Amino acid sequence: MSNTFGKAFTMTTFGESHGKALGCIVDGVPAGLEIDEAYIQSELNRRKPGKSKLETARKEDDKVEILSGTFEGFSTGTPIMMIIFNGNQKSRDYDNVKDLFRPGHADFTYFHKYGIRDYRGGGRSSARETAARVAAGSIAKLMLKTLDVEIVSGLCEVDGIKADAYDFEHAKTSLLYALDPKVEEAQKDAILAAKNKHDSVGGVVVTVATGVPKGLGEPLYYKLDAILAEAMMGINAAKAIEIGDGIASTSLKGSQNNDGITPDGFTSNHSGGMLGGISNGDDIVVKTHFKPTPSIFQAQDTVNTSNEAMKFELKGRHDPCVAIRGSVVTEAMMALVLADMTLLNMGKKMQHLKDIYKK
Amino acid sequence: MSNTFGKAFTMTTFGESHGKALGCIVDGVPAGLEIDEAYIQSELNRRKPGKSKLETARKEDDKVEILSGTFEGFSTGTPIMMIIFNGNQKSRDYDNVKDLFRPGHADFTYFHKYGIRDYRGGGRSSARETAARVAAGSIAKLMLKTLDVEIVSGLCEVDGIKADAYDFEHAKTSLLYALDPKVEEAQKDAILAAKNKHDSVGGVVVTVATGVPKGLGEPLYYKLDAILAEAMMGINAAKAIEIGDGIASTSLKGSQNNDGITPDGFTSNHSGGMLGGISNGDDIVVKTHFKPTPSIFQAQDTVNTSNEAMKFELKGRHDPCVAIRGSVVTEAMMALVLADMTLLNMGKKMQHLKDIYKK
Amino acid sequence: MSNTFGKAFTMTTFGESHGKALGCIVDGVPAGLEIDEAYIQSELNRRKPGKSKLETARKEDDKVEILSGTFEGFSTGTPIMMIIFNGNQKSRDYDNVKDLFRPGHADFTYFHKYGIRDYRGGGRSSARETAARVAAGSIAKLMLKTLDVEIVSGLCEVDGIKADAYDFEHAKTSLLYALDPKVEEAQKDAILAAKNKHDSVGGVVVTVATGVPKGLGEPLYYKLDAILAEAMMGINAAKAIEIGDGIASTSLKGSQNNDGITPDGFTSNHSGGMLGGISNGDDIVVKTHFKPTPSIFQAQDTVNTSNEAMKFELKGRHDPCVAIRGSVVTEAMMALVLADMTLLNMGKKMQHLKDIYKK
Amino acid sequence: MSNTFGKAFTMTTFGESHGKALGCIVDGVPAGLEIDEAYIQSELNRRKPGKSKLETARKEDDKVEILSGTFEGFSTGTPIMMIIFNGNQKSRDYDNVKDLFRPGHADFTYFHKYGIRDYRGGGRSSARETAARVAAGSIAKLMLKTLDVEIVSGLCEVDGIKADAYDFEHAKTSLLYALDPKVEEAQKDAILAAKNKHDSVGGVVVTVATGVPKGLGEPLYYKLDAILAEAMMGINAAKAIEIGDGIASTSLKGSQNNDGITPDGFTSNHSGGMLGGISNGDDIVVKTHFKPTPSIFQAQDTVNTSNEAMKFELKGRHDPCVAIRGSVVTEAMMALVLADMTLLNMGKKMQHLKDIYKK
Repeated sequence: MSNTFGKAFTMTTFGESHGKALGCIVDGVPAGLEIDEAYIQSELNRRKPGKSKLETARKEDDKVEILSGTFEGFSTGTPIMMIIFNGNQKSRDYDNVKDLFRPGHADFTYFHKYGIRDYRGGGRSSARETAARVAAGSIAKLMLKTLDVEIVSGLCEVDGIKADAYDFEHAKTSLLYALDPKVEEAQKDAILAAKNKHDSVGGVVVTVATGVPKGLGEPLYYKLDAILAEAMMGINAAKAIEIGDGIASTSLKGSQNNDGITPDGFTSNHSGGMLGGISNGDDIVVKTHFKPTPSIFQAQDTVNTSNEAMKFELKGRHDPCVAIRGSVVTEAMMALVLADMTLLNMGKKMQHLKDIYKK
Repeated sequence: MSNTFGKAFTMTTFGESHGKALGCIVDGVPAGLEIDEAYIQSELNRRKPGKSKLETARKEDDKVEILSGTFEGFSTGTPIMMIIFNGNQKSRDYDNVKDLFRPGHADFTYFHKYGIRDYRGGGRSSARETAARVAAGSIAKLMLKTLDVEIVSGLCEVDGIKADAYDFEHAKTSLLYALDPKVEEAQKDAILAAKNKHDSVGGVVVTVATGVPKGLGEPLYYKLDAILAEAMMGINAAKAIEIGDGIASTSLKGSQNNDGITPDGFTSNHSGGMLGGISNGDDIVVKTHFKPTPSIFQAQDTVNTSNEAMKFELKGRHDPCVAIRGSVVTEAMMALVLADMTLLNMGKKMQHLKDIYKK
Repeated sequence: MSNTFGKAFTMTTFGESHGKALGCIVDGVPAGLEIDEAYIQSELNRRKPGKSKLETARKEDDKVEILSGTFEGFSTGTPIMMIIFNGNQKSRDYDNVKDLFRPGHADFTYFHKYGIRDYRGGGRSSARETAARVAAGSIAKLMLKTLDVEIVSGLCEVDGIKADAYDFEHAKTSLLYALDPKVEEAQKDAILAAKNKHDSVGGVVVTVATGVPKGLGEPLYYKLDAILAEAMMGINAAKAIEIGDGIASTSLKGSQNNDGITPDGFTSNHSGGMLGGISNGDDIVVKTHFKPTPSIFQAQDTVNTSNEAMKFELKGRHDPCVAIRGSVVTEAMMALVLADMTLLNMGKKMQHLKDIYKK
Repeated sequence: MSNTFGKAFTMTTFGESHGKALGCIVDGVPAGLEIDEAYIQSELNRRKPGKSKLETARKEDDKVEILSGTFEGFSTGTPIMMIIFNGNQKSRDYDNVKDLFRPGHADFTYFHKYGIRDYRGGGRSSARETAARVAAGSIAKLMLKTLDVEIVSGLCEVDGIKADAYDFEHAKTSLLYALDPKVEEAQKDAILAAKNKHDSVGGVVVTVATGVPKGLGEPLYYKLDAILAEAMMGINAAKAIEIGDGIASTSLKGSQNNDGITPDGFTSNHSGGMLGGISNGDDIVVKTHFKPTPSIFQAQDTVNTSNEAMKFELKGRHDPCVAIRGSVVTEAMMALVLADMTLLNMGKKMQHLKDIYKK
């Protein structure tokens, strides 16, 4: 079950970076949802690499196909299977890493957990797998859209260079999904400078959901904040998660941090749209911190599968800043969480059961 | 199922802050584990309030009793039920909050989710519930101890005052579980200063597990880092989670952040003891950021259940810094996660099945 | 998690037959359900032993207490914990079985699974545990009643003596919950005859739910029939389960077995109220076959924990026909399944989400 | 999650009878299992239709392909995805059923549950989906074989004609998987006679696992018998399940039904290889009763989606006795249950944890 995410609206994925295909089964989608295939493909296009020199030059077509669960353009309530065939399954680029463990990668731990070294580009641990998440997330987004929930994201920090203000409309057309046009060039320069030095940089993504009703989140061990933290921390290279003001809250006094309540709503949103792990009707705000890409083109110390010291020198093509494409993945994960919480919230009041039961 | 935590080693809890009792059922504990009841009680004593003027003056006895699942001092493989009866169930202190929502608390969201206002001290959303987590976590700790895993914690930051070095031995006897004796007095003063101004402060807890073997964590959607993030973010007042260097990683270059690998182990532990969501044999390091206690003794804007504007003035007794007692809860949550991951890891290699199957 | 039943409306139980207490946590109960404690106790009274000489003479008070999850007589949406303290925890009656395995009981398999012999009256495997199921089931029944679903049961067969017709009203007041007054005396005589010969008899229970709407059941691996089969087969001593005409269907032709459909409903109910694992609006009908009580007062061959041949002679007090009290347990299990399916069915149509989402 | 079966060794399936493809993701397979693709295909060939005139004449190629989870012929611990493309997706044969509900089929209930009539041959509810179960089950069988567990099956009854003795070797080569060569011709004649009258017959399958160790099954709500009952009852057209002697136990006395225990094992196997829901080391024996195929070529009463009375006359090609091919499916389901129970049993004794933990 560890390859299934969610409880009611679930995604189960399969596939390795250099296998024949990857994809997902999305289960729990309510019947009667219009499935816009062009939209799903457009989401995958936002994530796919090679759109600029800020990303890996690797070409992945990421053409998605739906194989089940829809009928005449609508969901039927049965599992929706989506598949992306890998055009290029050659493992050639990875021959030099066959017997050794790339520093900062999961090679070492997969080998120790499973006793097998699938050396083909990270296998299952490759960020290529996030294509399946984006496909599943796009179904969740379609469901949420019909309920007037929208999710946006962008980069608020690259290599320590921080955005002053967030412009999510700008981020949509920015090559690096930058939230602040004023620092965008500096952020871009930092990425390219690191790339030229065969190095990589980290970044921070802000993800926001608007239109979320009050009441989403299942206490005590399926709280909205806890599951968003799980969802985001599980993305490749994520190392820290903040809800609302997050770390900044730590230095505030209670009198500063509490959001006042008025008949017209909250006077501020330090909380990031939730209290006690349940949405309060305000915007859901999550920050995800991505470490610098571990794939760098400098010689590094490592060992091989026989635990002998080796020098590792990377070949191939890699993102100098994984946070950029990670931005799209955070939206997918937030959508999956909110779709799941929406379904789980359906049976919380007896009155709702009475309303729906015999319809 | 939202009141159950874990997949194989699970905790299911019940109880409200001012109900008759609270407690937990721990399921999945392997048979043959020695259950040291004095140890369990000692863990609860570490969490219980009133140990110093840095904490709420409220008295809670927190006497725990085991009602099932053990026989002659050992676990039997059946569910272990532990109960803590609430000595004082009077709701008197909370009469003034009966119809309104306390800012920064879950009152507002529980009301909107469930349609009911259980005004007795936060009901289920009260941090009092973490007593049940500590009880369950102490069973997990006992199991991990027999496998040579130890978990420690302490405060590295209070009201913005940061520790320079971490001394987990010192933290054990510090009234505020402070990690750095050099800043401990300043941290203590900050807490008391806020308390005197009827305010509260935030804090940051570091939690570390040592002796963890390689291989714990279930990719892709039950990764060790993701589930630790979920576990910690689900604690009352937690607002941000870092794994290893966390946020600091964001400003590093890949060449600085990657942990080199040698035949004798890793050359550094920026990663916090995991790669690809699987433990790498190094120390597991997690930071949990707690917001300042929302319960403050200043007048605040709020509304009542009829959405009319009200002024709220708190009565009662409250912790000026929830991070202190939160420290003990982070250990319990980490223990529950590691115990769960340990059981889930038992069937990952065919050879292990062959070794165990017919024993 | 193996001590949790259900997915959305769940019961987690604890307790051994001769431990301090047993009970359950019921999670997922919608908020706003009136919790009639007298009704819950009345259900437990129907199950408790010693009501006639057809049952064990053992006295169990089975006084149930609710410790959480309700407020002013209504469910709050938080876990409902119910506990039954065991009045008499003396293990005296079982001293003669301490080192050996009672034939037909779970002693042998628990010992091999867990490596521990908790000899106190079967420990966790004792049918005494079904008291917790009945308590949880009574909450499910209360929820279903508000939705106009009723569940009844009775014995249609004892020691091979079969009922010709089913009178569920009669069963309610019959000492053996007999469905057919015409064969009731013969059934009673069979039980007493076996009891006098220090033997035991089997029996068959029919359980029926009326008022169930169309649409309950989650294909493909949480079908209504499959989960009812699981629920019933999991009751102590159950050995066969039939849905609708069950085994009789096997000898019919398709033209005889298909239920015709008319604008006013089905022309027959061979199917037992479901098609493709989803309820069709007709009565849900399940038969549960109970083996004769394994506890008999004749010498039997067995081994001890050192695998040495022994003769076993039972002491104590036991039901000569477990099907009688099993009848009450089947109702509880059916109620739990239907309550669970009701909640799971809440998010199946997009229109329902739109109707409820922002309420 | 309702399209996922199992807890530790899981199968998640997708696909409709007339969609583009169907298949499954098998998760939890231990790493290092040799994956014999020819064996998997041979299992699918045993299930596929058209092998004799006792089955539907419909041609389904059922060519299975593995798209992930294996490396150099062995499982890697990552999800194994298997796909079967539907050669012929034409819905032509079903045009006459487009607006109405076929009696005895799930059309009626799917429509009421989901509000959609996917009329293409039953869509998701078609028995065609069992091909995915057989594919997943074949992986489970491969795992169990390495642990010396074998599963066999055959028909013990067709149209009321019962086998006297069970010859599982004979069943393997019998066109109808008949267990008793003495009644095989009579059973065959009954099937063909019904077919000629445009009718169908029921049948009963016996499924047996040998070599199962003591200790499989997770009390109290994931018992081996309960989950086998769920697994089998969930197969299309199943209406009754027996464990061991099942219904026959009901008429026995306790003194007859108890299996005596000796140092060399049990003196009989009335129990079907389990006590208290845990395997006892003896053969696991389950009977599954299949109703006659609802698809018959006689005019039947039904309604359409507007609830108007209609006569329905079937076209197309259908099995006159679904129990035949159902036999192969019971083996797959039993294998999935036993594989799941094997993994779940890995962490039941502290000693096992100590043995495996740091390996």
